[in-house]
Amino acid sequence: MPLTLTPLNGIPFIHAGDDLFQIMLKAVDETGIHLATGDILVIAQKIISKAEGRLVNLSTVKPSPRAVEIAGITEKDPRFVELVLQESKQVLRMRQNTLIVEHRNGYVCANAGIDHSNVQGDWGNAEDWVLLLPEDSDRSAQQLCSAFDQRLGIQIGVLIIDSHGRAWRLGTVGTTIGVGGMPALVDLRGKPDLLGFRLRITQVAAADELAAAASLVMGQADEASPVVHVRGFPYPLREGSFQELVRPSELDLFR
Amino acid sequence: MPLTLTPLNGIPFIHAGDDLFQIMLKAVDETGIHLATGDILVIAQKIISKAEGRLVNLSTVKPSPRAVEIAGITEKDPRFVELVLQESKQVLRMRQNTLIVEHRNGYVCANAGIDHSNVQGDWGNAEDWVLLLPEDSDRSAQQLCSAFDQRLGIQIGVLIIDSHGRAWRLGTVGTTIGVGGMPALVDLRGKPDLLGFRLRITQVAAADELAAAASLVMGQADEASPVVHVRGFPYPLREGSFQELVRPSELDLFR
Repeated sequence: MPLTLTPLNGIPFIHAGDDLFQIMLKAVDETGIHLATGDILVIAQKIISKAEGRLVNLSTVKPSPRAVEIAGITEKDPRFVELVLQESKQVLRMRQNTLIVEHRNGYVCANAGIDHSNVQGDWGNAEDWVLLLPEDSDRSAQQLCSAFDQRLGIQIGVLIIDSHGRAWRLGTVGTTIGVGGMPALVDLRGKPDLLGFRLRITQVAAADELAAAASLVMGQADEASPVVHVRGFPYPLREGSFQELVRPSELDLFR
Repeated sequence: MPLTLTPLNGIPFIHAGDDLFQIMLKAVDETGIHLATGDILVIAQKIISKAEGRLVNLSTVKPSPRAVEIAGITEKDPRFVELVLQESKQVLRMRQNTLIVEHRNGYVCANAGIDHSNVQGDWGNAEDWVLLLPEDSDRSAQQLCSAFDQRLGIQIGVLIIDSHGRAWRLGTVGTTIGVGGMPALVDLRGKPDLLGFRLRITQVAAADELAAAASLVMGQADEASPVVHVRGFPYPLREGSFQELVRPSELDLFR
C-alpha cells in the first residue's frame, strides 16, 4: 500500500481560541478526502500554538540577569532569551546567533522552539511578537485525537511537528513534538531480517520519519499548508507520546 | 498535488555485479508504475553496496594498533574497527558499544555506516561478513540517474539513503547519503512568509525529508522493500549532491 500525503486546502490564518477540530474537518472535506480510521493528520506546531494563545509580546517580558548575560553572548534580544530560558530545562550550547537548549518536554532545539516568523498579534510592532511551542504538545495532539473519536467515531493519529536544524547537517527537517493515537517509536527488535539474523538497530523513529515527510509537503514559505493528511502509515496505530523519542541523558554522547 | 511513496515489488536479493538499473526497471513495471520525468527513486544503501561488491570478510582485515585500542574502549571487533577507521576522516565519540565518526564523504554516523545485518557472502561464517557504504554514493546515484535519462529519455531523481541514529532522540530515521538529479538542500531564503516577513530558517533539507519518508515505507525487517517510487516531490529537480547537506565544521557546535 502506498503512503500518500495530501496537504489540506483552505486552512485559514489561525487566531487564539479557534476550534482547530472544526477547521480541520472543514478543510479535509474541501480537499475531497473521506477521513477514515487509521489515517493520520500531521499539524504544524504554529497553528496549534496560535490557537492556544501562545503568542507573547516581548514588551511584556522582563529579562533576568542570566538572560541578559546569555543575550550578550548570543547577540539576541534579552527579552527573547528570557522566554527561551523559561521554556527550557537546560542550555546545551550558545554562541553568536545560536542558543541550543533542552525544552521542558525534552526536545533539544534552538531557542526552545520560539519563533518570530509568520506571527501576528492584535497590536503593536509585529517584530515584537513571538510564538512559543504549545504548553504540552502531547496533550494538544491527544485532545484532537479524542475529538475525532468522540464526535465522529473514527480513530486517527495526530502528529504535531516543528522544523528544526541538525548538529552535523545543513537545512531543516520536520520533527515530532507531540503525538496522539499513534506510535512515536516502533520497536522491531527481535524481528528477523532477510537472512534470519536478529535485527540490531531496530527501533524506528516512525513519527519523526512521518514528520519529515509531512514537512516536505507543507512547504515553508507563502504557499504553506499547515495540515497534511496521511494514508498508508505502515505500523498499527496505538496510544503514543513524544516522550518515547527522548534519549535519556545517560545515553547521550553530545551534551 | 499529493506526495505518494510506493515500495517496489519484486526486488530480488542483490549480489555483486547485479545491474540495478534493469532490476529496478522490472520492479517498477511489476509494481504497475509508469515511470515519468519528475519522479524519484529512493534506494536503500544496502543494495547499492551489495551490487558494488562492498562486502568484506573480517578474516581478511588486519587491525592497526589504533583499531585495537579503540576496539578495547568500544568492545567491538578490532577488525571491524579497522574498517571503520579506513572509511573515516575523524572519530567524534567513542565508548562501550558506540563509535561515532565522520565518514570520508562528511556523513557523521555510527561505525562509518558499516553493518552486519542482512548481509551474505559466498563463503564462511555469515557473522564475519560486513557491508561498507558505497565507495561514492553521489556517483552511484548520478550514474543511475544518467542511465534513466540515456536509455529511457526520462529525467528522474535518485536518492540513496541509510538509517541512522540521532544525538538526542531514540530510534533511527532514514537519511541521505547520495543524491543524483535532485536537490539535497532547497534554499527558500528571501521568500516572504504569510505576513510578508522574510523567512529566517529557510534552508530545507528536502532530500533528508524524503529519505525519512521513504525509509518509513521501506520497513526495516523481513518485509523490507529496498526501493521506493516517489511522485509529487514539491521542488523542481536539478543536479544535486549529498555535499550540499554537510555542515561545515566551523558551523558545528557538537564536535
